[in-house]
Amino acid sequence: MSYQSHYFKEVREAQKNAYAPYSNFKVGAYLKTKDGRCFYGANVENAAYPMGICAERSSLVSAISEGYQPGDFESITVTVDADKPSSPCGACRQVMMELCDKDMPVYMTNQNGDMIEATVDELLPLGFSGKDLN
Amino acid sequence: MSYQSHYFKEVREAQKNAYAPYSNFKVGAYLKTKDGRCFYGANVENAAYPMGICAERSSLVSAISEGYQPGDFESITVTVDADKPSSPCGACRQVMMELCDKDMPVYMTNQNGDMIEATVDELLPLGFSGKDLN
Amino acid sequence: MSYQSHYFKEVREAQKNAYAPYSNFKVGAYLKTKDGRCFYGANVENAAYPMGICAERSSLVSAISEGYQPGDFESITVTVDADKPSSPCGACRQVMMELCDKDMPVYMTNQNGDMIEATVDELLPLGFSGKDLN
Amino acid sequence: MSYQSHYFKEVREAQKNAYAPYSNFKVGAYLKTKDGRCFYGANVENAAYPMGICAERSSLVSAISEGYQPGDFESITVTVDADKPSSPCGACRQVMMELCDKDMPVYMTNQNGDMIEATVDELLPLGFSGKDLN
Repeated sequence: MSYQSHYFKEVREAQKNAYAPYSNFKVGAYLKTKDGRCFYGANVENAAYPMGICAERSSLVSAISEGYQPGDFESITVTVDADKPSSPCGACRQVMMELCDKDMPVYMTNQNGDMIEATVDELLPLGFSGKDLN
Repeated sequence: MSYQSHYFKEVREAQKNAYAPYSNFKVGAYLKTKDGRCFYGANVENAAYPMGICAERSSLVSAISEGYQPGDFESITVTVDADKPSSPCGACRQVMMELCDKDMPVYMTNQNGDMIEATVDELLPLGFSGKDLN
Repeated sequence: MSYQSHYFKEVREAQKNAYAPYSNFKVGAYLKTKDGRCFYGANVENAAYPMGICAERSSLVSAISEGYQPGDFESITVTVDADKPSSPCGACRQVMMELCDKDMPVYMTNQNGDMIEATVDELLPLGFSGKDLN
Repeated sequence: MSYQSHYFKEVREAQKNAYAPYSNFKVGAYLKTKDGRCFYGANVENAAYPMGICAERSSLVSAISEGYQPGDFESITVTVDADKPSSPCGACRQVMMELCDKDMPVYMTNQNGDMIEATVDELLPLGFSGKDLN
């Protein structure tokens, strides 16, 4: 699969950086910008579980912190170790809705190279956004 | 509309309790349990914006704190003041996925009584859940 | 101890409502209002760990959702099962800073009735608040 | 002040990357590792306010995602535009407690170069940590 030959190796590298001592569920993310840069993301857990931050959001805030803007992203790839690829949690979908194009692809993978693809919009239908605030 | 005659008044009451000094965007939620009890929810904002909690989640944690269990809920109604009803944010969808039946209806309303209905599953397709953790 | 005779039994009841299938770390909170009402709080975990909500915050958003206002609270008692009482996480301290008087007492307990007491201000020194935003 | 000559310029650069369309309160963070690397952090807000992520946490998850480990950090500097330096919110303090040495310095600054210094431990006294879970 051409997908696998492009980002699979990279996202599996990102996953190695996960700090997940509480769940032992390591997640990696690989965010590609439209101008060709990439950002790793890994989940960063906390003894106070709600203070953890997921891999997808880690990659997105890394990119914004480096100067990227909403809309600058081409795709995000996520990986886990599980029988089938996991999807981003609702919070990560909400952050994607804010920062990414609605039709940006989200590639969900696992250690076997299985892959599910969906757009941001498909993952958060009727999504809440800044337009709703006014 | 029969919907309006049932929960519209109630959720508008819940909304009045919103503590939203930062966004001025007041949200109300009305959670109905299968055994007939109801819980109000209101958004509770914070000067540190990420520490706010949405109306939907407020109602759900209120119910759990009172002894209700995942699966005990019949419906949730949400209301805002806006031209069209707003949908729950991704975080609230994730909490609904954990605590509610997948086919539980979510009623989204506004001050005019406009209404959009969707199930938990429709709002979080390919939803991440405990099964993904193994 | 007089403390124990007042709220210990109550907060241990609240703790029973915890939904903590991921950590098995059940936390209970008992929030007392100045006009004599009380609200139970229990931690409500999520398969997506960061979407969990702690017991302390559960009790506070329950009270606000029922119409209480910032400043209406007299004390909060928290309990865990551990060798020594645990303190609230940083997020809960931040929410207390927003909603409670700075000198409101926070009682931290465990199953043995051990107790540590601190004020909101002591738990979040140099606390960030709405005043910092303007 | 020697402090200003070292990290002030850098953290003010990081602040420029803040995505804060809702609060207009831009925050920058500059995280220094013990082996000499640095990571920018900026606050990344969301229309769903609770889904925002603060500057301090942005810098920390960026570093972990790049392979750094808890304990690898030398200092963090934070900046805001305000009459006096703001302190990190409770959530950021909790994440620092998890990932940083307890005596790591946190430098809080503003546009005027005013500075307040505190350690992680001082900012989260009686801090909740992984030890509390067992």
